[in-house]
Amino acid sequence: MSSKKKITTRAEDYSKWYLDVIEVADLAENAAVKGCMVIKPYGYAIWENFQAVLDRMIKETGHQNAYFPLLIPKSFLSREASHVEGFAKECAVVTHYRLKAQDGGVVVDPEAKLTEELIIRPTSETIIYDTFSRWVSSWRDLPLLVNQWANIVRWEMRTRPFLRTTEFLWQEGHTAHATKEEADAEVSKMLEVYRVFAEEYLAIPVIKGLKSESEKFAGALYTTTIEAMMQDGKALQAGTSHNLGQHFAEVFEVKFADQDGQLKYCWTTSWGVSTRMMGALIMCHSDDKGLVLPPKIAPVKVVIVPIWKDEAKKAQMLEAAAKLAGEVSAGLAGVGPVSVGGGAGAAVTAGAAPGGLLGAVKVDTRDHLTVGEKFYEWEKKGVPLRIELGERELEAGQVVVVRRDDGSKQNLPLDQVAGQVSGLLEAIQTALFEKARNFREANMHEIEDYTAFKKQLEADVPGFIVSHWCGSAVCEEQIKEETKASTRCMPFDLEKTSGKCIKCGTETDRRIIFAKAY
Amino acid sequence: MSSKKKITTRAEDYSKWYLDVIEVADLAENAAVKGCMVIKPYGYAIWENFQAVLDRMIKETGHQNAYFPLLIPKSFLSREASHVEGFAKECAVVTHYRLKAQDGGVVVDPEAKLTEELIIRPTSETIIYDTFSRWVSSWRDLPLLVNQWANIVRWEMRTRPFLRTTEFLWQEGHTAHATKEEADAEVSKMLEVYRVFAEEYLAIPVIKGLKSESEKFAGALYTTTIEAMMQDGKALQAGTSHNLGQHFAEVFEVKFADQDGQLKYCWTTSWGVSTRMMGALIMCHSDDKGLVLPPKIAPVKVVIVPIWKDEAKKAQMLEAAAKLAGEVSAGLAGVGPVSVGGGAGAAVTAGAAPGGLLGAVKVDTRDHLTVGEKFYEWEKKGVPLRIELGERELEAGQVVVVRRDDGSKQNLPLDQVAGQVSGLLEAIQTALFEKARNFREANMHEIEDYTAFKKQLEADVPGFIVSHWCGSAVCEEQIKEETKASTRCMPFDLEKTSGKCIKCGTETDRRIIFAKAY
Repeated sequence: MSSKKKITTRAEDYSKWYLDVIEVADLAENAAVKGCMVIKPYGYAIWENFQAVLDRMIKETGHQNAYFPLLIPKSFLSREASHVEGFAKECAVVTHYRLKAQDGGVVVDPEAKLTEELIIRPTSETIIYDTFSRWVSSWRDLPLLVNQWANIVRWEMRTRPFLRTTEFLWQEGHTAHATKEEADAEVSKMLEVYRVFAEEYLAIPVIKGLKSESEKFAGALYTTTIEAMMQDGKALQAGTSHNLGQHFAEVFEVKFADQDGQLKYCWTTSWGVSTRMMGALIMCHSDDKGLVLPPKIAPVKVVIVPIWKDEAKKAQMLEAAAKLAGEVSAGLAGVGPVSVGGGAGAAVTAGAAPGGLLGAVKVDTRDHLTVGEKFYEWEKKGVPLRIELGERELEAGQVVVVRRDDGSKQNLPLDQVAGQVSGLLEAIQTALFEKARNFREANMHEIEDYTAFKKQLEADVPGFIVSHWCGSAVCEEQIKEETKASTRCMPFDLEKTSGKCIKCGTETDRRIIFAKAY
Repeated sequence: MSSKKKITTRAEDYSKWYLDVIEVADLAENAAVKGCMVIKPYGYAIWENFQAVLDRMIKETGHQNAYFPLLIPKSFLSREASHVEGFAKECAVVTHYRLKAQDGGVVVDPEAKLTEELIIRPTSETIIYDTFSRWVSSWRDLPLLVNQWANIVRWEMRTRPFLRTTEFLWQEGHTAHATKEEADAEVSKMLEVYRVFAEEYLAIPVIKGLKSESEKFAGALYTTTIEAMMQDGKALQAGTSHNLGQHFAEVFEVKFADQDGQLKYCWTTSWGVSTRMMGALIMCHSDDKGLVLPPKIAPVKVVIVPIWKDEAKKAQMLEAAAKLAGEVSAGLAGVGPVSVGGGAGAAVTAGAAPGGLLGAVKVDTRDHLTVGEKFYEWEKKGVPLRIELGERELEAGQVVVVRRDDGSKQNLPLDQVAGQVSGLLEAIQTALFEKARNFREANMHEIEDYTAFKKQLEADVPGFIVSHWCGSAVCEEQIKEETKASTRCMPFDLEKTSGKCIKCGTETDRRIIFAKAY
């Protein structure tokens, strides 16, 4: 299954490089259905680590998982007006429920036409809030904190693996609260969960902020986001958390009797991250040699390659490698919980990765590949640490340890390897984050002049531009037309300063990030 | 959310009892789309435990997870002739990819008609073997051992929550091998995984056997199954494992260069269990008071109910309950791995349930419910052990411990509870399995006379009938028409004896189980 193809460099063609990394690292491939992908075992193992970490964090903040139907009655989608605009367009529509044999093939049975068409969920607000209307009756039922892991279909015209696919996987949280304040707190709590997940596990630095009215979720009161910068200086929205106000509650009759005896509409929120974040992970850290994975999310954290020239020594080398693997695994298992400071909203703690995530140590025992081929394969797959154990090294009680992130090599005494691996992995995790953050900081530009603004957006690495903006959708739209840059977010931690809208010159203290985006 | 409805007894109406249990235990409810269900948080927590245990067992036997598309081109379904017959009928068909606004609602955009219709997967053999054809080229790529967790849609006319729903959740394993022998071994290995899962975790005794030609999977060489008996004496197929021969490999060109240099077709297998097994779990153990859960799969294993009459004592009681909960949790965490003997095929070991599964101890601190209401709620939800901690008990250093399975109560010294809980849970797990096995044994009938056969099938609890059968589909069909009983399986451990076909009288040494079935 492993590909021998040469990777296009980032400098040559960034888009092609991205596709090449996915191919050579065996992450995914295009499926027989246009715009859909097959997530291959190695790619899916990374997604499973995403799920394990995020699922734990979602549960630790009091949410429960549930499962809602894939198919949504067409009429549901048209009940919330702005939601129709946003989602009832490019959808997969089920119109029939039977095929019949004909001329050696199968055809759709015209007799089996549905009276009301069904839509494959493009997001689940409508069906979930319809359900919530039966689950909530009293203030005692609130807050209702639900999450679902599911597949989603949106009929995208231009697709790219992970970043934009017709079908994708995600989690979508949906909650109902008694007051706006509680819904606000939930929105920022979950955005903070996403920040911790992105920064502490994926080593992707993100900026938390508020979306503009044009960029908010269809049907939301407001949308908050975490925005990441890719290596080509483009932005990627990595996760969003929405306060849906009382819109959906009013449409789907999610009401509760409050403590004061009055019947009130709930305030609801929704929030999600998807397999799109796999795209962010790939683009943020990988290099011209292939995938680079942060240790905390890597399915294989350490690969040990025993090397023998003399076939008679093979058994001995394999045994030594197996022994070392056992020691290294034991060393990793001892890595304790990592405490992460909370930010906005309620405090979020990120414990150690769950059981299976640490301790993934692999010995490459294959004998039909050369040593070079083995090195090359694990490099392409982004395994954080490679340990080379040769005959001479074994005699000398030494191994060579190679870091994937910077390619640095060091000799380590065999009996000290196990003790040092967790420290090395932590160093890699930190280095990846620092490198990505430094890159972002180097590519953040505060610009107040529209000519300079346009010029920056024509640069090879356009980066993030922080500018004053009057808040009007007209300016936003014109800038987009003229530069292809969209507004990303109004960062929460950005100081307020007076200035003039980069486009129309109106006085304002509002600043926003503009960037070209995925 | 909790229902106060009275449960119909099994004796009154078994079908209604089943629906009532699902309702009062908060497991699932009907969705807005006909035949689909919402799996509620408590029901989904049970499913997550299913997944955690089974996923670990699937990985321990060398399989990797991956993800394949939801949508399958219509033409794929017609490529394997017998598969068409079995699956290309009651399917959800996607014909359009866009809606448009019209008269305040949305309608299907006739311009957005797909050139080839897409089918929502009713099972994934076709799309997966099409993919495998790109993954396999050499004998070194074999065996290819893949599993996927996914949602499935089959357009069922008569649905029942968990047992038969239009959309359901499952895992489907798909493997490719070099030889028939290796595929055979895989089929029986995974059937054994299912047996261990059913018997050791769900406490459901099952019979492993071979399906008849009429009952096998559409496109398979043969199908093996685990069959369980429900409390009404009907059978439920709880999991299947198929040898697909080379059929799909030939149709989808899954070929490999063997060590002898020749190009050969792979032998493939598939195997799956679904949310249907939740139905089996509910029907196997529950009683007229509601759900009964085996401890190993219960999301909440122990509930502690502190009881205070004097509001001034509340804080003290809650504190004592919390302390006890901590001790009980710690006691459960110490429960070591359970070793399970392998059966047919490769040995399968079932370790302890993963991290979160043991140690689910809940303290019911709610003060708007009476103690009786709390007891009633946890009883309906099938929590295996209830610990009652009253003021007087606390003073006396005693608690009352109540088993859900048999309702038995005992006083235990407070300082011994934590040490005894894991033993009590194991006793419940064993008792549930023994009870179900005894029930099944009491309702197994070896019958050689067709009049007696028909009479038995009219009994309140028809049970399983073991009879000689000539092997012809005609006899099978006639029996089904006359008695509504279908063939369930030819048990692997059934001794061969000579006799006459229960229907046509032909001499045969083949015996099979007949039963009414879900």
